[in-house]
Amino acid sequence: MFTADEMLHHWRGHRALTRRTIERFPDEHLFTFTPGAPLRTFGEMMLETVRMVAPSLHGVESGKWDFTQIDTSDVHEKAVLLHLWDEADALIEARWPHLTRDALRGVVPPLPHLTALPYLVENEIHHRGQGFVYLRLLGIEPPAFYER
Amino acid sequence: MFTADEMLHHWRGHRALTRRTIERFPDEHLFTFTPGAPLRTFGEMMLETVRMVAPSLHGVESGKWDFTQIDTSDVHEKAVLLHLWDEADALIEARWPHLTRDALRGVVPPLPHLTALPYLVENEIHHRGQGFVYLRLLGIEPPAFYER
Repeated sequence: MFTADEMLHHWRGHRALTRRTIERFPDEHLFTFTPGAPLRTFGEMMLETVRMVAPSLHGVESGKWDFTQIDTSDVHEKAVLLHLWDEADALIEARWPHLTRDALRGVVPPLPHLTALPYLVENEIHHRGQGFVYLRLLGIEPPAFYER
Repeated sequence: MFTADEMLHHWRGHRALTRRTIERFPDEHLFTFTPGAPLRTFGEMMLETVRMVAPSLHGVESGKWDFTQIDTSDVHEKAVLLHLWDEADALIEARWPHLTRDALRGVVPPLPHLTALPYLVENEIHHRGQGFVYLRLLGIEPPAFYER
């Protein structure tokens, strides 16, 4: 239904929208604001999203999965998160041409019904939607969902 | 990268998860609770999601788009929303075999960068993620995101 190039283009659009969502958060709220317990901050959710990129790309390309690679526990600033975001973008662009069709359709090992790369995009959409709620509660207009 | 059958299977998994999310809301909160202005209730977001299904399927199949078909302004009960949800499921199952490759790749007319059917799924994921926030704030555990 869609080619690998189309999927990359599609993901780029989502990542650009998510980046705009991060940027819209005031620095003082990104890693502190939640609407209530037990919800995490949007910054923490986006760090989780960033942490999944390298292991997922490596996993589908090599067949070897290791989700314990990156420590982001000391990240509490928007500029650092955006830098990690851009590094993940660069990694996606660098590895995509090397991914075979089988790799692009590779599953998340403990959850074999989940295709790893679409799952990454969906996890990003899921948490970004939550960020939209947080922004509204902070009185800030989120970016347009239909712009990519 | 994915076949039409795979996309249908994938969407079915998301719709089942979203249905479980709706079910988890107490009846008295589904159409009344929001964490604050200007946020809508989860019930209203899910009615919007339901309203998009028939026009989108009809639009990609026929090339004729009309987004003003369904009035759900009198729906304020979980059972009615779930009934509409199941009707939309049945419509998806009924029309899917008739969709050509071009139809499956059809775009949303005012936004030609958005492929209509994946956009429906993404809009559902986006709002379902917001419903997860609402459930947490109500002290209710959402369904598992990775189960479909």
